[in-house]
Amino acid sequence: MPRSSQQTHARIVDAAHMMFWRNGFVRASLDDIADQAHVTKRTLYQHFRSKDDLMAAVLLQASELSMQRLRRYFAQPYETPTAFFDAIFRDLAQWAARPHWTGAGFTRVAIELADLPGHPARAVARRHKQTVESSFVVLLEQAGIPSATERAREIMLLWEGAMTLTLIHADHGYIRAAAEAAKRLLENDGA
Amino acid sequence: MPRSSQQTHARIVDAAHMMFWRNGFVRASLDDIADQAHVTKRTLYQHFRSKDDLMAAVLLQASELSMQRLRRYFAQPYETPTAFFDAIFRDLAQWAARPHWTGAGFTRVAIELADLPGHPARAVARRHKQTVESSFVVLLEQAGIPSATERAREIMLLWEGAMTLTLIHADHGYIRAAAEAAKRLLENDGA
Repeated sequence: MPRSSQQTHARIVDAAHMMFWRNGFVRASLDDIADQAHVTKRTLYQHFRSKDDLMAAVLLQASELSMQRLRRYFAQPYETPTAFFDAIFRDLAQWAARPHWTGAGFTRVAIELADLPGHPARAVARRHKQTVESSFVVLLEQAGIPSATERAREIMLLWEGAMTLTLIHADHGYIRAAAEAAKRLLENDGA
Repeated sequence: MPRSSQQTHARIVDAAHMMFWRNGFVRASLDDIADQAHVTKRTLYQHFRSKDDLMAAVLLQASELSMQRLRRYFAQPYETPTAFFDAIFRDLAQWAARPHWTGAGFTRVAIELADLPGHPARAVARRHKQTVESSFVVLLEQAGIPSATERAREIMLLWEGAMTLTLIHADHGYIRAAAEAAKRLLENDGA
């Protein structure tokens, strides 16, 4: 792609990201996204065949950014895996405290499109959650946790539950409770 | 309400329930719901002022049915709270194994309408989750668990996470993992 076309492409993805996160995937319209990106619908369609493809592109970019962020956490020296998970739950609490926080896009797309398991955006969401879970397994194995696979899955469960219940109740106590539960499950496994 | 009007009211709520659960709250249209209930849009509007009110009515009925179901579990004699939670996680696994399962409606409405915290249907969802959590606290207190409030909240987190991750991955291993984690957290608290 020539540079200006790349810039347009990136601007559409950023606009779609904003509209999807604000209003949900179903309610965000291509007209609104085109307006937000300052392009015509015709230009939008030159870059993306459909709203579904655009949704998948947005989630793919979000997954890359999320993994970059997670890798920065991995790169830091932690005394114990408990300290690592404390840090990422604190990160979640900060994220969830932003005004108009609407939860995780990967979760949201799976739930909004619950009846469409084959949707391209759901495939991206599924792969993202798998990648995060696998990276937790590796971290816990390297820290010498005997049941790294089980503990990684429990942290995923607590993390996911914390996001949904924080959204439902607007109460960050759920994130603190999830972090505490993760810590106790790890400590009982020698962390 | 005269009997025939009550029946129409109930038929509209049942039809809306089906359409909401199948397609999500945003995509289900009042036209489709009226068709499904075999009533005109005019009749539908005689019973419900708006789609938002209808959503709230559907969730209120779902909450009552869900609490009735939970009370049947409460009424059974369990040797330990662990056995009780094993039973309700097995119930979740059976529910999630149904064809075209789309997760919990209370969670779905909170996520679909993440940007509308004041929506009447979100208020019903919030109250429902609070009622379930409070009923778990009472059960755990009666069983002599010292930190009943903390354990009840952890079970809510694991339950919520299990639903979302089962939906994302179509893998019931998440429900088993959640049940195991709940059991370990309870056992470390004297259950």
